[in-house]
Amino acid sequence: MKRKIGIVGATGYTGVELLRLLVSHPDVEIICVTSREHAGSRVDAMFPNLRGYLDLAFTAPSDEALSACDLVFFATPNGVAMKSTQTLLDAGTKVIDLAADFRIKDIAVWEKWYGMQHASPALVEEAVYGLPELNREHIRNARLVANPGCYPTAVTLGLLPLVENGLIDLEGIIADTKSGVSGAGRKAEVHTLLAEAGDNFKAYAVAGHRHQPEIAQTLSIVAQNAISPVFVPHLLPMIRGIHATLYAMLSVDAEQADLQQLYTARYANEPFVDVMPAGSHPETRSVRGANMCRMAIHRPGNTRRVVVLSVIDNLVKGAAGQAVQNMNLMLGLSEHTALQHPGLLP
Amino acid sequence: MKRKIGIVGATGYTGVELLRLLVSHPDVEIICVTSREHAGSRVDAMFPNLRGYLDLAFTAPSDEALSACDLVFFATPNGVAMKSTQTLLDAGTKVIDLAADFRIKDIAVWEKWYGMQHASPALVEEAVYGLPELNREHIRNARLVANPGCYPTAVTLGLLPLVENGLIDLEGIIADTKSGVSGAGRKAEVHTLLAEAGDNFKAYAVAGHRHQPEIAQTLSIVAQNAISPVFVPHLLPMIRGIHATLYAMLSVDAEQADLQQLYTARYANEPFVDVMPAGSHPETRSVRGANMCRMAIHRPGNTRRVVVLSVIDNLVKGAAGQAVQNMNLMLGLSEHTALQHPGLLP
Amino acid sequence: MKRKIGIVGATGYTGVELLRLLVSHPDVEIICVTSREHAGSRVDAMFPNLRGYLDLAFTAPSDEALSACDLVFFATPNGVAMKSTQTLLDAGTKVIDLAADFRIKDIAVWEKWYGMQHASPALVEEAVYGLPELNREHIRNARLVANPGCYPTAVTLGLLPLVENGLIDLEGIIADTKSGVSGAGRKAEVHTLLAEAGDNFKAYAVAGHRHQPEIAQTLSIVAQNAISPVFVPHLLPMIRGIHATLYAMLSVDAEQADLQQLYTARYANEPFVDVMPAGSHPETRSVRGANMCRMAIHRPGNTRRVVVLSVIDNLVKGAAGQAVQNMNLMLGLSEHTALQHPGLLP
Amino acid sequence: MKRKIGIVGATGYTGVELLRLLVSHPDVEIICVTSREHAGSRVDAMFPNLRGYLDLAFTAPSDEALSACDLVFFATPNGVAMKSTQTLLDAGTKVIDLAADFRIKDIAVWEKWYGMQHASPALVEEAVYGLPELNREHIRNARLVANPGCYPTAVTLGLLPLVENGLIDLEGIIADTKSGVSGAGRKAEVHTLLAEAGDNFKAYAVAGHRHQPEIAQTLSIVAQNAISPVFVPHLLPMIRGIHATLYAMLSVDAEQADLQQLYTARYANEPFVDVMPAGSHPETRSVRGANMCRMAIHRPGNTRRVVVLSVIDNLVKGAAGQAVQNMNLMLGLSEHTALQHPGLLP
Repeated sequence: MKRKIGIVGATGYTGVELLRLLVSHPDVEIICVTSREHAGSRVDAMFPNLRGYLDLAFTAPSDEALSACDLVFFATPNGVAMKSTQTLLDAGTKVIDLAADFRIKDIAVWEKWYGMQHASPALVEEAVYGLPELNREHIRNARLVANPGCYPTAVTLGLLPLVENGLIDLEGIIADTKSGVSGAGRKAEVHTLLAEAGDNFKAYAVAGHRHQPEIAQTLSIVAQNAISPVFVPHLLPMIRGIHATLYAMLSVDAEQADLQQLYTARYANEPFVDVMPAGSHPETRSVRGANMCRMAIHRPGNTRRVVVLSVIDNLVKGAAGQAVQNMNLMLGLSEHTALQHPGLLP
Repeated sequence: MKRKIGIVGATGYTGVELLRLLVSHPDVEIICVTSREHAGSRVDAMFPNLRGYLDLAFTAPSDEALSACDLVFFATPNGVAMKSTQTLLDAGTKVIDLAADFRIKDIAVWEKWYGMQHASPALVEEAVYGLPELNREHIRNARLVANPGCYPTAVTLGLLPLVENGLIDLEGIIADTKSGVSGAGRKAEVHTLLAEAGDNFKAYAVAGHRHQPEIAQTLSIVAQNAISPVFVPHLLPMIRGIHATLYAMLSVDAEQADLQQLYTARYANEPFVDVMPAGSHPETRSVRGANMCRMAIHRPGNTRRVVVLSVIDNLVKGAAGQAVQNMNLMLGLSEHTALQHPGLLP
Repeated sequence: MKRKIGIVGATGYTGVELLRLLVSHPDVEIICVTSREHAGSRVDAMFPNLRGYLDLAFTAPSDEALSACDLVFFATPNGVAMKSTQTLLDAGTKVIDLAADFRIKDIAVWEKWYGMQHASPALVEEAVYGLPELNREHIRNARLVANPGCYPTAVTLGLLPLVENGLIDLEGIIADTKSGVSGAGRKAEVHTLLAEAGDNFKAYAVAGHRHQPEIAQTLSIVAQNAISPVFVPHLLPMIRGIHATLYAMLSVDAEQADLQQLYTARYANEPFVDVMPAGSHPETRSVRGANMCRMAIHRPGNTRRVVVLSVIDNLVKGAAGQAVQNMNLMLGLSEHTALQHPGLLP
Repeated sequence: MKRKIGIVGATGYTGVELLRLLVSHPDVEIICVTSREHAGSRVDAMFPNLRGYLDLAFTAPSDEALSACDLVFFATPNGVAMKSTQTLLDAGTKVIDLAADFRIKDIAVWEKWYGMQHASPALVEEAVYGLPELNREHIRNARLVANPGCYPTAVTLGLLPLVENGLIDLEGIIADTKSGVSGAGRKAEVHTLLAEAGDNFKAYAVAGHRHQPEIAQTLSIVAQNAISPVFVPHLLPMIRGIHATLYAMLSVDAEQADLQQLYTARYANEPFVDVMPAGSHPETRSVRGANMCRMAIHRPGNTRRVVVLSVIDNLVKGAAGQAVQNMNLMLGLSEHTALQHPGLLP
């Protein structure tokens, strides 16, 4: 029997991407897609790529309808999931939040960066950070998963082997990251208009970005030491794709071959991480539409300086695809179901 | 002595384009740039390309300040200029409206398409339609100029020689037009986000678009006969540029050479229309940033079917550049001052 | 047992798109991917989106290897397939040519437009034009399928219901078409560089384009009358997507509702044609990566003028997807296998 | 009397950009535009933006014609200028090379990176590195100027105040740079096709790039100490624009205000460097088409880590615009003539 799935707030880009992936999933059935604003109108009128795939209208969010689901995704703005999750969990419904409500364990840090009071601190403690490459077994047993941010996914996967093995100076890590504009969501705003963000490139939030503490938290746990990388995001004149260029300094002697071997071994059994041959330059388009983090490790000039290049599709491995991967784990399904297609190139 | 210029509503794309052109104009001085919403903030904080060129802040619109100008541009939404123009004219200030308030002579038609009541019908009669290639002498003597729409500029200039000489069937004219997204303005709207309008192409407003009656009016006057072309606009995934592909049927026998000669002769003395050699395909990028309409005329298969290709930069010859051209005429300046630079290619 | 598939010339965009689709096809196995130039190098070194999906290197083309296949795709330049097809057919291998070698029945016309002598005119007669919506049963029984051109697919499907039912004037049909640049292939050429074709729009080949006789041939067969539409292609500053804007004149009285009903009924059982509700504007992004032709029919101003809007992904329904659809039919497989995923939006 | 100017190899992007700027220059006359391949064909047939501005055809390069010029620009591939420059200098013609022939003082380093033997090492010694903000007086007196590379211009100007004042650790400087694709030139190559480089982002040449030794040379001279920054270039899916994100570690205590003041003071009298207010994020579009380097300095988290953001148009301040600036200096003209226009935004 198919598992029943609900999506709260499916009028944004992570919502439609969940729908795109889930309509091809043989083991689940979408029974409830909510939107307060668009209740009553057909989902495929807003997203015509879904015509013929999804015969549903948006409904107003209701605890009753959502509680009938086996699992509910929150594809909502920050601060929404934290208000309804307890009710759903109590009803036996599992929850994956694609926003940031349950990502940061330190409530004070969360409240500072997200500018609001947390509505359910107890659940923050319970929530599992949904990076399968780090927390797979916990995710399998979780009722509540905090789906990682897009930048944190690309950055953390890129640095994990180095940090796990204590190979780099924990100070001085730099994450110079670049994202397509779909990461900013489907809100009407001047700065993400095509006429503003197209044919243009800029850094933003250099003074501080919410994904920095999320990255710092995960890396610090892994290192068992405080790590606070410099994080500078930039906006790319394109829709999908994140490229992280990661700079670190080796704290030990190591050959390029060793590092290559380290990365290859670390991710050998990971279905959604691809370590390219030495000397490669991963391209964002190679993961367009695919649930894949593709990376390469460099040591320019053969110095102690390491440069890791890591790419994802921010809407897939950086959001909806990773959420489906987590759902598969939480529901005891095959981890890669509905996530098996190559990227769209060109 | 420099002429004093004011711009009302300079926070949109036609506004900043006026500023870009006028800061290099040796004979004028911008003394007043208004924005109700941004009064008090520096213009170059919003438009950093102007840093070092314009030492002004936005001010709230005031009749007094604007009346001190020799000429005022309205770069406002439709329906604004019609409320203030009479006051300015009474004060001896000339006016160019870049919106549509004074373009359509038939008030009933205007009110139908623009969905509001006209505030100053008498001025509609006085206003000169600011297409210099058609109305140059009237513009020189005008107090009030209705600057043409972007599509109408490209379409009308492309068809003018055929219509003036009675060479085509007046029924069956088709204008298949494509525009960059800056034509939609600098408003926060979902459908012009980079993530929506980028990497995408679609038609819009096939049922009817406001620029159709404007084109029909001008061509009908020229033909001394009713013309109502089919007009289908499309949205291009880029910022600047309009390409009109115009289809008509010759009503007389004519050779390609004759048509080529007709177009070349018609525009031989026009500084801002360029007729390319037979067989050419004008590109929007060749007029990027330039006050130029570039065109080519074809007769595929040597039948009676004529295809005219016409390109402009919608923000320059389709808006701000043509407005500066009109200003030069109205103020008795050299018509091409501040408009002499080639397009930015690549 | 899986069917054995070969692809000749898989270093271009239709080739990699065939691979993208076929690696997810449960009933076929790719056993041979040829490239004279890149023989010996891994396919996924050239197309990293396929890393993990295809463990093959390019091989030099050989009749022996290809004859071992159940079906071979030619994703080669024009003029290649016609030289090898007879040998493959004689060996019992079915053939789908994605180039134009077998599309045009009149050899003289083909030779004029393609500028070479045809090497196997007899096979042209045998070849079935691979538009399933028109020739499904013939395709099922074919040994040799000529896969339609990209523009002809969008244009023909858009006009078919009108022409089949004799509703329009056969003279005066206009196909104003716009294509993403991947249609020009993966050849190093100046005019398709990002710095040339990006941020730009232009018409090309207004004097004549090879797809015009292909469209004319199909429509003329359907109409049982000569049809030679005006065909003007344009180049879009994006990678994938074709939008055809089709203009025709009704020769009979008809209501919009009747036309809408006509189209809906004609394509009701077609898995890969989607007729949108009246008043819609299909977007190319809604079919990005999907084997779908999406269309809408308009009658602006309620005159006799019909405007049909038709979009496809030129690499999918316009090339590789349609070829897989044809393969499914020729091999007796379910027609929609490996073609069932929604478009990638945004 | 106007100075006579020649351009060798004007069929590339730096060539057409020189032409775009020089046709508006009141003090010079272009008398000779060479191209071996296109000799005899009109310049404006290749670059239609110049129609009406330049009534010249390409000619085959000839020492005689070029020696009649007051100044000749080489907009040629690396290795061309070094063969002809001595002849021109002997004839009293000044030379600006936009390629790399005279940029690197250490011949062995040059030969290693550029893969050929240097044809005129003596001239390398004489050549002045054409960064006016560093070498203005030398440029005024130079016969031969090596116009800086695009990346080196953005990076060097961004770091200059810190290095000149000895404020940062000389080890550990990182230049993470991103460039539009016009920097790769107007050569037919697969990897810069729109269908390859569009809608995509990647790093390249992480193992080593020719601009690294050029940056290292300039900074080392300024620091009077060896500096070898890590340099990682990336390719942006757009045509024009470079963004350099520069990371360094303060070696002294300093306040943000001090750094801001340092930069503002350093560039106060520079017409083509703009230091933005603290907290700003310069955008590449703000310098599109303009001869300007715009920058901002940050200290995220108020640590000793400095992040400088620096943008240029690679074809203007990064190539042709800077070359015209150098020409103005070498010919005793006003430095900013023909370079005074704001960037094209949007």
